[in-house]
Amino acid sequence: VFIGCQFSLYAMSDDFVDTILAAVRDLRDRDDLRVEADDLSTLIVGPSETMFEAVREAFVAAANTGTHVVASLTFSRGCPGEPDDPICTPEGPEKRRSELPDPRTVATSGVRTAAQFAVYPLGAAGYMDTIGEQIERAKQAGTFSKGKHFCTRLDGDAAAVFATIEAAFEAAGEQVGHVVTTATVSANSPSDG
Amino acid sequence: VFIGCQFSLYAMSDDFVDTILAAVRDLRDRDDLRVEADDLSTLIVGPSETMFEAVREAFVAAANTGTHVVASLTFSRGCPGEPDDPICTPEGPEKRRSELPDPRTVATSGVRTAAQFAVYPLGAAGYMDTIGEQIERAKQAGTFSKGKHFCTRLDGDAAAVFATIEAAFEAAGEQVGHVVTTATVSANSPSDG
Repeated sequence: VFIGCQFSLYAMSDDFVDTILAAVRDLRDRDDLRVEADDLSTLIVGPSETMFEAVREAFVAAANTGTHVVASLTFSRGCPGEPDDPICTPEGPEKRRSELPDPRTVATSGVRTAAQFAVYPLGAAGYMDTIGEQIERAKQAGTFSKGKHFCTRLDGDAAAVFATIEAAFEAAGEQVGHVVTTATVSANSPSDG
Repeated sequence: VFIGCQFSLYAMSDDFVDTILAAVRDLRDRDDLRVEADDLSTLIVGPSETMFEAVREAFVAAANTGTHVVASLTFSRGCPGEPDDPICTPEGPEKRRSELPDPRTVATSGVRTAAQFAVYPLGAAGYMDTIGEQIERAKQAGTFSKGKHFCTRLDGDAAAVFATIEAAFEAAGEQVGHVVTTATVSANSPSDG
């Protein structure tokens, strides 16, 4: 299955170019992901766990500069018509995930974030049930803040927030072949709250 | 039908607060739309045509400062479970749209943009056909640049680009009850290309 994301990082600073380039430098050097950038977003293709780890690390690096930064993310799995990519299905049992990430036990990053996300299971009549289960999962994870129109608000450490989004993306993908998850993750906002 | 969008505007500048507040001031004063903001996004609820006009004007105002700005948008129509809102269905024939916006004939804004967008028709088995028709529509509109993974790239004047996204959102909504359209629109990027 083809798994990837389009990742945009925004830094609200005159130094935005340097802030962003420094944050994504490690991402671009990874050989366990396919990474391609243009002026709008960076495409990351690879196994879900590795991909989420990479975008979380880039976001945390940017947030640690103290600048108000926002990540805008579109995760996709199983889109019909996308060519299969071997990098998405690494060999070996050590690469195989045994369970969903748990936002309650993940190692914290020290970066406080506000986020909103939405899950779109496509081509499935029962998609609202699948979405509802992911919102319930976020409530159990301790990161849920409130429902908004068209999305769900999360607050918490970046590690817990990304784990919540990852768990929703993975769990929905167990029910529906083609799933898109969109997320906005913010740190250091002056209008925090 | 409940129609709205979550709209985030990012300004890559130390003066981002002033830039954004100035750009959304007119938006917040409108009485033909419901507008609610928090630290992550601004919710706009109302008829599609009025809503698109308002977000385009806010984006163009921000872009006209010369700052690198990006709008991140999630448009939604017909989400089950959303309460109907009278503001979405204004009375009177003059408020009723006779045809889709035409990106080729819309009055230009003078702001050059790069954008990417995706259409998600939900709960429909034939959703890939509906998506394919919107990509074809963008090709006819002259704003299509290329397909990317998970989205379609557009380039052109802000007016034509927003009209392309609006036409896709509207046309998909004629086929499927619940449609989400996401878009990223950028201006004044130093890595323009």
